[in-house]
Amino acid sequence: MTARKTRDAAGRARRPGGASRPPAAGDDARIPVTILGATGAVGQRFVALLDRHPWFRVEALCASDRSAGRPYAEAARWYLDKPMPDWARGMTVRDCRPGGASRVAFSGLDAEVAGGIEEEFARQGMAVVSNARNHRLEDDVPLLVPEVNHEHLSLVAAQKRRFPGGGFIVTNPNCSTVGLVMALAPLHAKFEVTEVVTATLQAVSGAGYPGVASLDILGNVIPYIGGEEEKMEAESRKILGRPGAPAAFGVSAHCHRVPVADGHTVAISLRTRVRATPEQAIETLRAWRTPLTDFGLPSLPERPIEVRDEKDRPQPRHDALAGGGMSVSVGRVRRCPILGLKMVALVHNTIRGAAGVALLNAELLKAKGLL
Amino acid sequence: MTARKTRDAAGRARRPGGASRPPAAGDDARIPVTILGATGAVGQRFVALLDRHPWFRVEALCASDRSAGRPYAEAARWYLDKPMPDWARGMTVRDCRPGGASRVAFSGLDAEVAGGIEEEFARQGMAVVSNARNHRLEDDVPLLVPEVNHEHLSLVAAQKRRFPGGGFIVTNPNCSTVGLVMALAPLHAKFEVTEVVTATLQAVSGAGYPGVASLDILGNVIPYIGGEEEKMEAESRKILGRPGAPAAFGVSAHCHRVPVADGHTVAISLRTRVRATPEQAIETLRAWRTPLTDFGLPSLPERPIEVRDEKDRPQPRHDALAGGGMSVSVGRVRRCPILGLKMVALVHNTIRGAAGVALLNAELLKAKGLL
Amino acid sequence: MTARKTRDAAGRARRPGGASRPPAAGDDARIPVTILGATGAVGQRFVALLDRHPWFRVEALCASDRSAGRPYAEAARWYLDKPMPDWARGMTVRDCRPGGASRVAFSGLDAEVAGGIEEEFARQGMAVVSNARNHRLEDDVPLLVPEVNHEHLSLVAAQKRRFPGGGFIVTNPNCSTVGLVMALAPLHAKFEVTEVVTATLQAVSGAGYPGVASLDILGNVIPYIGGEEEKMEAESRKILGRPGAPAAFGVSAHCHRVPVADGHTVAISLRTRVRATPEQAIETLRAWRTPLTDFGLPSLPERPIEVRDEKDRPQPRHDALAGGGMSVSVGRVRRCPILGLKMVALVHNTIRGAAGVALLNAELLKAKGLL
Amino acid sequence: MTARKTRDAAGRARRPGGASRPPAAGDDARIPVTILGATGAVGQRFVALLDRHPWFRVEALCASDRSAGRPYAEAARWYLDKPMPDWARGMTVRDCRPGGASRVAFSGLDAEVAGGIEEEFARQGMAVVSNARNHRLEDDVPLLVPEVNHEHLSLVAAQKRRFPGGGFIVTNPNCSTVGLVMALAPLHAKFEVTEVVTATLQAVSGAGYPGVASLDILGNVIPYIGGEEEKMEAESRKILGRPGAPAAFGVSAHCHRVPVADGHTVAISLRTRVRATPEQAIETLRAWRTPLTDFGLPSLPERPIEVRDEKDRPQPRHDALAGGGMSVSVGRVRRCPILGLKMVALVHNTIRGAAGVALLNAELLKAKGLL
Repeated sequence: MTARKTRDAAGRARRPGGASRPPAAGDDARIPVTILGATGAVGQRFVALLDRHPWFRVEALCASDRSAGRPYAEAARWYLDKPMPDWARGMTVRDCRPGGASRVAFSGLDAEVAGGIEEEFARQGMAVVSNARNHRLEDDVPLLVPEVNHEHLSLVAAQKRRFPGGGFIVTNPNCSTVGLVMALAPLHAKFEVTEVVTATLQAVSGAGYPGVASLDILGNVIPYIGGEEEKMEAESRKILGRPGAPAAFGVSAHCHRVPVADGHTVAISLRTRVRATPEQAIETLRAWRTPLTDFGLPSLPERPIEVRDEKDRPQPRHDALAGGGMSVSVGRVRRCPILGLKMVALVHNTIRGAAGVALLNAELLKAKGLL
Repeated sequence: MTARKTRDAAGRARRPGGASRPPAAGDDARIPVTILGATGAVGQRFVALLDRHPWFRVEALCASDRSAGRPYAEAARWYLDKPMPDWARGMTVRDCRPGGASRVAFSGLDAEVAGGIEEEFARQGMAVVSNARNHRLEDDVPLLVPEVNHEHLSLVAAQKRRFPGGGFIVTNPNCSTVGLVMALAPLHAKFEVTEVVTATLQAVSGAGYPGVASLDILGNVIPYIGGEEEKMEAESRKILGRPGAPAAFGVSAHCHRVPVADGHTVAISLRTRVRATPEQAIETLRAWRTPLTDFGLPSLPERPIEVRDEKDRPQPRHDALAGGGMSVSVGRVRRCPILGLKMVALVHNTIRGAAGVALLNAELLKAKGLL
Repeated sequence: MTARKTRDAAGRARRPGGASRPPAAGDDARIPVTILGATGAVGQRFVALLDRHPWFRVEALCASDRSAGRPYAEAARWYLDKPMPDWARGMTVRDCRPGGASRVAFSGLDAEVAGGIEEEFARQGMAVVSNARNHRLEDDVPLLVPEVNHEHLSLVAAQKRRFPGGGFIVTNPNCSTVGLVMALAPLHAKFEVTEVVTATLQAVSGAGYPGVASLDILGNVIPYIGGEEEKMEAESRKILGRPGAPAAFGVSAHCHRVPVADGHTVAISLRTRVRATPEQAIETLRAWRTPLTDFGLPSLPERPIEVRDEKDRPQPRHDALAGGGMSVSVGRVRRCPILGLKMVALVHNTIRGAAGVALLNAELLKAKGLL
Repeated sequence: MTARKTRDAAGRARRPGGASRPPAAGDDARIPVTILGATGAVGQRFVALLDRHPWFRVEALCASDRSAGRPYAEAARWYLDKPMPDWARGMTVRDCRPGGASRVAFSGLDAEVAGGIEEEFARQGMAVVSNARNHRLEDDVPLLVPEVNHEHLSLVAAQKRRFPGGGFIVTNPNCSTVGLVMALAPLHAKFEVTEVVTATLQAVSGAGYPGVASLDILGNVIPYIGGEEEKMEAESRKILGRPGAPAAFGVSAHCHRVPVADGHTVAISLRTRVRATPEQAIETLRAWRTPLTDFGLPSLPERPIEVRDEKDRPQPRHDALAGGGMSVSVGRVRRCPILGLKMVALVHNTIRGAAGVALLNAELLKAKGLL
């Protein structure tokens, strides 16, 4: 359109003048960053979300040896709706070895290789902001949903032992866990959650690319996602606990893959120590404010939790992109005859549930002077 | 194919000689039956399942005034995969008034009109076998899943007060409830179920035809189905209780519509009074036998409950048609950290969950000499 | 997100200050407009596209008697991904009778009622910008794809006979026709198209809401869309001809409905009088410029035709929103062994193929001083 | 169900006594056969269609080295709806080397490896019945749709030069080509087809397993299938020509992948030398009889071409399994303003379009005494 502003993958509008361009060193005071696993599903989201980011500029795109040496436009089978940024197209993909000026490495690596590579980058003094599961449950590694538990960042101090050069690793949880803990956090803070039974209906993009075969999922449901139920149970306790002291509540998860492209639906029944009515729960969710609002983080949504009143919302199609994909929508808060409360949450699994929450983690690091 | 046998909608093979033909009065000792709401989604299933049924022949197809007087082939927008039986094509649709020789009325009527019409047929002395929700929870009306609670049939005796002419109404539960109670029944019998939290992923055919708009469900999930959660909670207690004394367990349901054509997936967490390991639960489900096997009911599947061992089954695509659509498949039986046990069940919602279970009810009536 | 700009349904960014607000008469020099059929699928797109439009403000939302008198938020079952604009939520829906200050009526009415209502509005002196099919083929009614045949606007002069008060009707074609004619127009201008065989794969949103039943289209193809093939054949000749003299080429269309939400794919084989190689065709499509660029029309995309080089594009998921949904993407231009050339085009059916092209028509009227 | 007959993947009913069992050498006079590529999508269909086949029994299941040595139940990721036959579950997968007693090798191999392996089996004296594309267009290899061009079998005589031991290779066409040529054959025989423009809407099972990634096709259309358009053009000419003399008509194909599991829709416009009205075409299609009916081939459908009268048929959901998946359904026969006639055909791509047509080829070989 004539004289129209463009938008990035998160639905954020950018300055019309800010044409998509290669991050030139000369005129750019932004922090150089590296993307590990840049050709994968999460890596592509990193590229899209970092397009014209006000604080960070992409200096290196790293991937497996198979991709290294090729232009990104060739090496990545781009699956996002919005086009690949022009500056990325021509960048030569590197292999996953530290080097260059980057101070942050965003990791969208597969768990098979993420562990060692991330440690190597941390050893070289870099801040590794990882979406991989490998280090999430280690004692000295923060597992962050920044609005919820940013104070867990203090754990990185203990990583000095492993990484004396000042590097460290911070992680974000599994995509379905992000939806669960964001919906639980305000209620846990006020009423203390003691038991959770949850069932998920997860989008195929959560399995990466190529991921789920179309023959397996067209018109079908797969009632199993390897390791997912265990992750939801362990990770949510760590996030909603204090550093070093996981929360004590129990979690039981039933995970399903459904024929939806983006957006995990999470049905939640919960018991709280302090009894709460649905009305009190709704009020608590609505009144909840993250302590992060003063940091001016560019990717922080106005309302990290969006409470919906309609009887049939949230839905992936309508609500996955709420807050540019960074808000978790919660609806149908009502009485559960067994556990006391029930509700349904929706999280955009590759934005808020993966690359977007990792980017928010990096913004938090910068705001707290850790970069 | 040459010299091949055909099969009906339930995947049952019929004699090759038994060509699809109009039920002629002369050469046919089968019981004449009427289908109410014959043009709707459940009505069409009745037509398909009754095609060449050994005990019943369709004498009348009844529907709303809009359809009455037209040939069935014109009045019904046929949505099933297998073709409309030839004998049905030319039958003239009647309005929903008693008459004719039928001794059974299968009701696939909408709840808006089912109540009064069904009573009228019962008042005229007919056995009304209904899939509608209207009378399900009435004290003198059996709510049957025959393999599970056929002894509830005794309730019909009390209907003499309402229908002195010998007519009566029997009902079957809501489609998702059928899946839930069949998976619970063996465990309830042995270990006594005390609490259930369930989440469903329900197929669009459960909403009838035209039902859910494609724009609402393509690539989407709708976390709400009007009245469904309440039905699952009330109906499963009635079925698993004794006649007149509902079971005491609590049920909490989360119902979702998903882009699947046929087959409801039901994720279940449950607590039992007598503690059971997953292994004991699996053994109990596998060892369970319905007391009905001696009745020779034509629609009774060999294994009403099919236990699956694969980690990612049951799935709608692979398992909805188990036992010709009459078996409920159960898998992933495992420990629930909150309630003790969890598992996933799959039920073909328009066969076992609607027209098929109603047909089984009618066969039971015949076998027990109630027709 | 903090300090983020919002975007409208067409993906266009709006000024951050320009919060969604009711169109107040006092501070607003924009032209007041009415939307007819405002609660339907196309009507909702009008509401979304007119949200903070620089030239027009919505004064009235009209719909059937069933909706009249109710707030729009209640009367419309909103199906678009982006939320209903706040100013629209509280507007009281009116019935479809002229009145008020509006100078333009956008019509998203069903063809069953559109004919008479549109004439009544024209008779009252209003410019009726219609997406309905009723008047499209009338001799004195322009059938416009503005970039292609804006000079057909001259036809409205002849409407003085019918509507002496200065009102008139302009129309846009059927959604699939828009895709076809935009892809053909540059080639017709240079090489003269003489024969076209086309097959469409059309999205469900083209059938309105509720439109296609999910049971009919999930995992299925319907090889028939009522009246569509005839429309494509007649309308494309009118558009690519001169006012009053339809083009002489023949068109044969095969129309299919597919399980896609938005975006019609149009496969095209064509013969031209002047023989053209695929390379010449590509160059011609790429070099084509609309004469409208100087009018500053707010909804005119930068590149009305987007030529793609990838072997497997355009695709609905990736390309429907090109140019904010206003660009037609064309790819796979290659030799056709029968007709000479073949290619595939993609059009967003409810934006460029319906409400968006109608809005562009209205902008053209304003730019040419006809409002 | 009690006392019910079972059915195989093609919907054919089998004797109730004929329980699924391993093909024992002793009591079994059937011809032993080998399946090459037995773990793949087409290989699985071979296994399903050969279950209790009256003429053939599976002696060996061969696949890549990765699978060799493992039980079939482990090596194959079974994707079909009906369960894997019991006799196949425990068979040890072999590598693809000739040996054993088999006289026929059914090949569902990938084209990357099929060429050499098939030749090796033919060299060892076996009849290779292949679904792979490698040898289809070779002069001495029959490319068969048996009902249409069984006389092309005479070509195998010339293979004596390559395979002096009496082995030979016969092939069937690409899945979409089968649908096209079966719909064209009766018209070509009577009116002589001279030009064809066709557009396909192809199911994902045609791409094998895992095949198309769900992220690529959910709610989407891919307007490109590698090599498919060329195959349709070349193969249909060979099939509808005389042995050694391809038919002279031109074919232009537009191929699309759509989110459908099974069933290719093929829209066809055609010109004939002898002009035919739609009514004449319908009559010709309906009157057409294959010369094969006297051979008693077990997989020959009663009506290889099923003509439909409804305005919106055939559809994958309703018609793919016509004739047990072996009939091609044709509908919407009407005038094409450009080429004279148009229509739409539907073919089950993995049954009639792949394993089923290959099986029919093998049955033909047996009936003609060539095994």
